[in-house]
Amino acid sequence: MRIPWLILALCVSFPALADEGMWTFDEFPAAALARAYGTSVDQAWLDHVRLSTLRLTNCTAAFVSGDGLILTNHHCIESCLAELSYKDANLLDRGFAAAGRTNEPRCATQLADVLVGTENVTARVAKALRGLDDRAANDRRKALLTELEGACERAGAKAKFGTVKCQAVTLNGGRYVIYRYQRYPDVRLVFAPESRIAEFGGDPDNFQFPRWSLDFALLRAYDKGRPAQTPNHFQIDFRGPQIGQVVFVAGNPGLTQRWQTHAELEFERDLALPTALLRLAELRGRFIQFGDDTVGDQGLVEAPLNTLENTLKVRRKLLDALHDDIMLERKRTEEHRLRELMPADSIDPWGEIEAACRRESELYLPALLIEGAVGFNSVLFRYARLLVRSADERLKPDADRLHEYTESSLPRVEQLLAARVPVNAGVETLTLSFSLSRLREWLGPDDPTVRKLLMKDSPDSLATRLVAESTLNDPAVRMQLWRGGKRAVDASLDPMIMLARALDGAARALRRQLEDEVEAPIAAASERIAVTRLKAYGSAVYPDANFTLRLNYGKVEGWTENGAAVDAFTYLGRAFERANGMEPFQIPDSWLKVKDSLDLDTPFCLSTNNDIVGGNSGSPLIDAAGHLVGLTFDGNIHSIAGVYWFDASKNRAVALHPAIIREALDKVYGAKTLLEELNGS
Amino acid sequence: MRIPWLILALCVSFPALADEGMWTFDEFPAAALARAYGTSVDQAWLDHVRLSTLRLTNCTAAFVSGDGLILTNHHCIESCLAELSYKDANLLDRGFAAAGRTNEPRCATQLADVLVGTENVTARVAKALRGLDDRAANDRRKALLTELEGACERAGAKAKFGTVKCQAVTLNGGRYVIYRYQRYPDVRLVFAPESRIAEFGGDPDNFQFPRWSLDFALLRAYDKGRPAQTPNHFQIDFRGPQIGQVVFVAGNPGLTQRWQTHAELEFERDLALPTALLRLAELRGRFIQFGDDTVGDQGLVEAPLNTLENTLKVRRKLLDALHDDIMLERKRTEEHRLRELMPADSIDPWGEIEAACRRESELYLPALLIEGAVGFNSVLFRYARLLVRSADERLKPDADRLHEYTESSLPRVEQLLAARVPVNAGVETLTLSFSLSRLREWLGPDDPTVRKLLMKDSPDSLATRLVAESTLNDPAVRMQLWRGGKRAVDASLDPMIMLARALDGAARALRRQLEDEVEAPIAAASERIAVTRLKAYGSAVYPDANFTLRLNYGKVEGWTENGAAVDAFTYLGRAFERANGMEPFQIPDSWLKVKDSLDLDTPFCLSTNNDIVGGNSGSPLIDAAGHLVGLTFDGNIHSIAGVYWFDASKNRAVALHPAIIREALDKVYGAKTLLEELNGS
Repeated sequence: MRIPWLILALCVSFPALADEGMWTFDEFPAAALARAYGTSVDQAWLDHVRLSTLRLTNCTAAFVSGDGLILTNHHCIESCLAELSYKDANLLDRGFAAAGRTNEPRCATQLADVLVGTENVTARVAKALRGLDDRAANDRRKALLTELEGACERAGAKAKFGTVKCQAVTLNGGRYVIYRYQRYPDVRLVFAPESRIAEFGGDPDNFQFPRWSLDFALLRAYDKGRPAQTPNHFQIDFRGPQIGQVVFVAGNPGLTQRWQTHAELEFERDLALPTALLRLAELRGRFIQFGDDTVGDQGLVEAPLNTLENTLKVRRKLLDALHDDIMLERKRTEEHRLRELMPADSIDPWGEIEAACRRESELYLPALLIEGAVGFNSVLFRYARLLVRSADERLKPDADRLHEYTESSLPRVEQLLAARVPVNAGVETLTLSFSLSRLREWLGPDDPTVRKLLMKDSPDSLATRLVAESTLNDPAVRMQLWRGGKRAVDASLDPMIMLARALDGAARALRRQLEDEVEAPIAAASERIAVTRLKAYGSAVYPDANFTLRLNYGKVEGWTENGAAVDAFTYLGRAFERANGMEPFQIPDSWLKVKDSLDLDTPFCLSTNNDIVGGNSGSPLIDAAGHLVGLTFDGNIHSIAGVYWFDASKNRAVALHPAIIREALDKVYGAKTLLEELNGS
Repeated sequence: MRIPWLILALCVSFPALADEGMWTFDEFPAAALARAYGTSVDQAWLDHVRLSTLRLTNCTAAFVSGDGLILTNHHCIESCLAELSYKDANLLDRGFAAAGRTNEPRCATQLADVLVGTENVTARVAKALRGLDDRAANDRRKALLTELEGACERAGAKAKFGTVKCQAVTLNGGRYVIYRYQRYPDVRLVFAPESRIAEFGGDPDNFQFPRWSLDFALLRAYDKGRPAQTPNHFQIDFRGPQIGQVVFVAGNPGLTQRWQTHAELEFERDLALPTALLRLAELRGRFIQFGDDTVGDQGLVEAPLNTLENTLKVRRKLLDALHDDIMLERKRTEEHRLRELMPADSIDPWGEIEAACRRESELYLPALLIEGAVGFNSVLFRYARLLVRSADERLKPDADRLHEYTESSLPRVEQLLAARVPVNAGVETLTLSFSLSRLREWLGPDDPTVRKLLMKDSPDSLATRLVAESTLNDPAVRMQLWRGGKRAVDASLDPMIMLARALDGAARALRRQLEDEVEAPIAAASERIAVTRLKAYGSAVYPDANFTLRLNYGKVEGWTENGAAVDAFTYLGRAFERANGMEPFQIPDSWLKVKDSLDLDTPFCLSTNNDIVGGNSGSPLIDAAGHLVGLTFDGNIHSIAGVYWFDASKNRAVALHPAIIREALDKVYGAKTLLEELNGS
């Protein structure tokens, strides 16, 4: 890791000595690891870890047996539990344990991807874009990457089994890589504890440590209707790691903005985050009151409310982070200094990004509400949008399509449309009415779209009618429209379809404006900045996270909070002391019944200094031997600012200790067969 | 208005040429007005305006007849309408017209104050504080001002009739003035239109212009049970003003922070505003859903929801304003330059304020939630706090008491406790449960206060029990405890009283910390800054608004929004076109029935460039002849940033035109007697 000394001294936010870094497997800094910890990992170790780690729709997971058994977080499969619940069996409340392999129910919208190969296509992209202006380059880049994804999938069709999916990945402006995944589209539910213990502490404890949340669940990947054979999987070491021990996190960190410019962060601080916070806080109030007011309705909003409260807490802390004027000022200073490394006569890319952000501020609310559909927060509307858009896009050549409707993406669209996911009319009306109110509030009652929609309606009356009259809740209706294509969709009188159709022109126009006037100049300028940064720092810089596979190393350790030491481990006994019998500090009966037989000294959770963010949920915590020694499910409160910068003194990842998983499966749930499978016997 | 040229050139935010300024009547810049507009006002004009203008509990109002008739905004008396409503007669929905003077019902918690005299006591304060350190000075200042208030009231008792109230007013650090008011504690409801027309456009139109909200209502001041005789009152000129005409606004602007330091504004931006916004947005969601879910409950939350949505919109725009880095940077530059005018060896007052703000950030959440009682949002808890605190405070010498329990303040406390205000258990449980959740979220489940409260409870279960078991909803119970004093309160087993008692030690300790570690150093530093500022600018600087009487001049004018001219007047006809039959764009039947008889060209609202903020609601718009030519009820969206700085190009006040008041009273409501009274006949 050769870093020009002069630059290092100038660049205050440079990741120097901390165990920071979300590294791609291609460029993992094994030498730096060896120097820091005397631990070495070889290519076989890296391959084994990569092939045993999975990407779910919003999380990470790991294979933990040769029969496709998958370990992930309970909170990662909440929506599956909600989908599989019915009137008298709320699986969130009750938990779930499949009665043998023939009774593992499918999670209709879940899937699992394993990264099996990568191909760097940076040079091909550069060649294709030569001489084009920003907008043309932006369009051409997208078209080319779609072509390369398609070519990769066609080549991959020769693979031995399963589905090959290819994804063009942009690594911090300037590096383009095609990622090839083996996809498991058939994922089934094996085991989940009751949410009371899985989410013990609820929102108050979320992003807190010490912690006692049994946040794990088990799924299984299926292949042609039978458990997938997965020779690459982690052996669990139920003893867990020691304090100070080197540990790795493999996973899919969702999004960091560590290399974004001052202007981009100001846009977040001034517009994107406050807008989101206000919206989410109010929706939270509506969900909670809805659950309170109507007997039996609490369960209906539990899963969306948990997701929402998590997002709310994250964004609140992100806003706090961006109010740190000193950090923002450092970023500006760093930019000034990088600029000095550029040719004197070159265009100022930071200035170009600043101008693009100003334009984005103008487009933001209409684009968010109409193209982003935040003004139409409704499952049925999302179906309608998918049907209306796919009908048009499927008629175009692949490279000309919106990215989410390319040939490579259509199977996922079809899976979403076909899935039988219960929609509750009350919740649906709530979210739609709420979002229509925001549409009116934020665009104003005299905006043309708002006026047209609410000419003779209030947000409430319109939402109620749309939800009552749409038939898109029925998968058969959706599949009929999907198969019928443009002719069927154009002929449909379903009010949601009609709404999506009526909005589509305005929505597409907003998207085009964003692409041409914001995305294109930022992409071009970011590439120029990336080139300069590469000159200055070499490959010692890891790319921003973008929900693709990364590896990080660190160690088991606590930290110091307000002068007091926070221990790196928690133990089962304290959970019982902490329970007050009321949500969200309630321990389920299954545990209370067997309390006397439990070892109260069982380690429950642990903290490590690994560099993680949202998306890493469900990531295996791995030791140098390649064994799974924990299940990452959260970070501490300081980890949230990790989206923008890594504070080595306080940023901690939080993992479930494997010993508590064994204690639970063995003594509470009597899941002997599963334990045997986990033990490899 | 002599301004040292050099300073003017340096000080970018100095109020130079605009019609900016919330002037005290003592220092109204009549000469500047004459120069700018060729209009002069004399002392008699100023006295007439001052004595005809009223301060209500949260608003401004004006006498408009010799028999104590008061004109103010409908939104200023919403809580009175809610209090006077009962099951089958929602006065917000229905409106109200008293059937003659003997049937005007009392607004139990309303009162009206007229400013009758002022005494500058700055020199006395300075003398008394000489040689004291910041904390001792802060305590001594408060005690002295309490003494001076008491002395003023005792002297005022010789006044001919009514109640004399005295208030020590601090004018931007360094100036202390005793304001003497004539108080009318008996204020009754005379007339209010239906809220559908009074608040036409609702929250979407709030702070917007063009506008069509008939936001007026009439009250009457009573004295010894009979209409008060008010020789000082405004004659209404129903023709209203012309475009470009000079107009004045007299009223009580609530709060500006134009002279606060960079550090104080950063505290607002980073902590106070985001905290408030998140809380209010979520509570808004709960109120709306509560109203939706329970048939007939919408009316229960209408008044608090309107207030909340207004506050939410204001704070959102205040946050936007503080995200203007250029304005904040200017403030810092200005501070650097003012500092250069200070003696080289003097303490840096801006640095002291910055340190105090850092301390305030640490204390903010516990102080807000526990001492500020934001964690106990409940009418019944407020009663309990008043009873517990007053029982202790009444035993102390006057000058040692908390300010809200001095002899001068006690009659108001008694009025609040005695008032028969309906409390709905559902709403009360909602707000209390909600605020307990915030208490737990923001202090954390392991905070000692939170742990004690929620040891065996959830926020919901605790709130439900407290509201169900407390008897403080009964005015007789409250008055018994009030009269029984400390012995009775200490012996009470009412759970709200017990809660308030249990919290009082921690709450008072937090208040003491805030006073000693934040308020005292800021008061001392602000005085030092004020002295420097006075040297630099002379009396050309008006003090920050603090809900005391001010006078501003300006003119009738529109503005330019995104390149389009906004006309200064709106007309009745457009309101009918805009109505869509759904809340909040619904015109009541009383208007639809007589639509044909109405003059659709009647002016409805107008915009002026007067410098106003919240608290100015209900302010008379006055012409140079001293006639009332409008009723200020709002500002445009740009006026909200007026809390921090005045943007002459866009900041506009919004007033109701007197012609629409006459049209409504005459043709819609047939209120001939009232119109005669208003016409002075």
